[in-house]
Amino acid sequence: MEKIAIVGVGNTKIGEWYENSLRGLTDIAISKALESANIEPKEIESTFIGSMSSGIFNQQEHISALIGPHSGVYAPALRVESACASGSQALRVAMMAIGAGYYDTALVIGVEKMTDLIDIGDITTALGTASDSSWELGVGATFPALFALMMRAHMHKYGSTLEEFASVAVKNHDNGSLNPDAQFRKKVTMDTVMNSRVIADPIRLFDCSPVSDGAAAVIVTTESLAKKYTDDPVYIAGTGAGTDHIALHQRPDITTMESTKRAVKTAFDMAKIKTKDVDFIEVHDCFTIAEVITLEDIGFCKKGQGGKFSLEGETALNSKISVNPSGGLKAKGHPVGATGIYQVIEVFHQLRNEAGKRQVTNNNIGVTHNIGGSGATCVVNVFSRGD
Amino acid sequence: MEKIAIVGVGNTKIGEWYENSLRGLTDIAISKALESANIEPKEIESTFIGSMSSGIFNQQEHISALIGPHSGVYAPALRVESACASGSQALRVAMMAIGAGYYDTALVIGVEKMTDLIDIGDITTALGTASDSSWELGVGATFPALFALMMRAHMHKYGSTLEEFASVAVKNHDNGSLNPDAQFRKKVTMDTVMNSRVIADPIRLFDCSPVSDGAAAVIVTTESLAKKYTDDPVYIAGTGAGTDHIALHQRPDITTMESTKRAVKTAFDMAKIKTKDVDFIEVHDCFTIAEVITLEDIGFCKKGQGGKFSLEGETALNSKISVNPSGGLKAKGHPVGATGIYQVIEVFHQLRNEAGKRQVTNNNIGVTHNIGGSGATCVVNVFSRGD
Repeated sequence: MEKIAIVGVGNTKIGEWYENSLRGLTDIAISKALESANIEPKEIESTFIGSMSSGIFNQQEHISALIGPHSGVYAPALRVESACASGSQALRVAMMAIGAGYYDTALVIGVEKMTDLIDIGDITTALGTASDSSWELGVGATFPALFALMMRAHMHKYGSTLEEFASVAVKNHDNGSLNPDAQFRKKVTMDTVMNSRVIADPIRLFDCSPVSDGAAAVIVTTESLAKKYTDDPVYIAGTGAGTDHIALHQRPDITTMESTKRAVKTAFDMAKIKTKDVDFIEVHDCFTIAEVITLEDIGFCKKGQGGKFSLEGETALNSKISVNPSGGLKAKGHPVGATGIYQVIEVFHQLRNEAGKRQVTNNNIGVTHNIGGSGATCVVNVFSRGD
Repeated sequence: MEKIAIVGVGNTKIGEWYENSLRGLTDIAISKALESANIEPKEIESTFIGSMSSGIFNQQEHISALIGPHSGVYAPALRVESACASGSQALRVAMMAIGAGYYDTALVIGVEKMTDLIDIGDITTALGTASDSSWELGVGATFPALFALMMRAHMHKYGSTLEEFASVAVKNHDNGSLNPDAQFRKKVTMDTVMNSRVIADPIRLFDCSPVSDGAAAVIVTTESLAKKYTDDPVYIAGTGAGTDHIALHQRPDITTMESTKRAVKTAFDMAKIKTKDVDFIEVHDCFTIAEVITLEDIGFCKKGQGGKFSLEGETALNSKISVNPSGGLKAKGHPVGATGIYQVIEVFHQLRNEAGKRQVTNNNIGVTHNIGGSGATCVVNVFSRGD
């Protein structure tokens, strides 16, 4: 199978875009991506959009028809949804479409405009539709509560500490302070994190990623066409997805994510790599516990040691394994359905030595890890320069 | 490229399933489809789900993780959305995934559980999110209103008559009366249709498809594996999709659908057929005007003559071209995101001579035509027995 290449990217800064709209934000991302690849809208043969809940956030379904034509792209379009993993799933579908020969060149977009809802309770409820609505959200278990259960279970089973979890937030804010597109560009101290107010015990405010708006777009094409658009294409060497039970109570162990293990195995096998070959990774740190569990599930450290591994600085920029050089969901921000594409764009820039002050020095293999819900969906993609 | 085969199908009856749930309905459809193909859940390698708005109808996004595991299918899953064309888009994505070699065998589901919303105003608003929410729904133009504009424009431009439109509803109720899975199994007279109450002038109640619940599932696999599961596989000979501006005011002519023309050209070219080769077709008659426009856009009759063509009986069962032998959206029902898969299942049964009293006698080539919104999205698929 011919490899798929990324030849251009574009995105908005992540933030609270009260003065802009879903279609306005995507227009910015699409324009930048087209310019980046030096490609005309008419050369785009298909569009794939990842978005979690434009229906609830913006009272707008069918954004596949809203977005492309608004930006002058009239190619056949569809939306892909798997909660917060929607962006990465959209990229996978684009790879499938090109791999099967339906199209040569596609536009892949991730977008979420969350601040059209003003009330934080409404936003939390909207996000909660990615859990089991009847058996979790419906009985009051919002996402902070669900991840609090996972964090408490992890502390109980492995003796992990609040300090260890806090170190994830501190590191990601350190990295975010170097990212001009990040929502939060302030460093924070361990003290600030550990003394922030309790959201759902043991999760505190600084264990949580924020409410964010953002749109991100990438142009993908075949290996043979890639050099037409850029001298430095980035190749998708492997992709994998995993699905597990949506509700926590259906899983035998809530201190691990089976979907991550499944996605990693498929993606790494396809890319012919092992965990030790990964130079840097963007992981889905919607809450600090999620980054800790992921470090363990991918095998960067032993099971139960993810927090210690983080506290010891092994995941800092240009340490043992650079985790979330972008600042992650915690500091860069988390426009849910767009996050997967933002992760890809970070890897794209890192592999091309375009990441400025947060550039990783070992940059041959970059990976993205994007989950939906409390981990019922996971998508892992592996990227390289192909040389 | 190897052809994709459908080897098993299953669905619920369409209706108002107040006593069941989204996951309950899909469980019925999946169980029947697995049994139909005599396949074990573990043989399913991926699941693709079409649903328009489970977020608004059921306060449940992320149904890709909800549905599969609930029915014992743990394969990687994702949801595809293009409003009422979601089901057909999900089938296209499954074809891409298999065509690119990611999987050999997939489960494709369409589901919509609309009656979790009780108030008809809430349902109409939910459906309106498939239009331009800011510039159509937001100013009160719900779907009956948008299609009323198209119908009035068609009457003005071509002199089509209310009687002609009514003939579409009468014919589809005739066919639906022969379909045990249809929501409405009563024949209706021209008089009943033309004297039903006005919804949005000139659209009357019997010009509209109903609010419906339903789930439908098909098992797809490669040509080489198909005979393992059934002696009579149905093959997808061609597929095409088109995207146009979402809002009516952005289109130069609202008496035609550019998306239909684009989808038909791609699908028919891929299948190497012309319009005259089509033996029967399931078209997207969300309102009677939609069927009339589609007859013209596909070329079964001259532009502007779709209503006359219908009134003259040319689209009745086993006449010149059998249109909506299932009863169509009008009589069979319209569980929006599921409709595309119900269309496929009708074609599957017709091609295999399993359609009972509504069996079409010329049954070599069957086509499905599925639109999203007021026609901004269209998906057309062509099916044959492959012999």
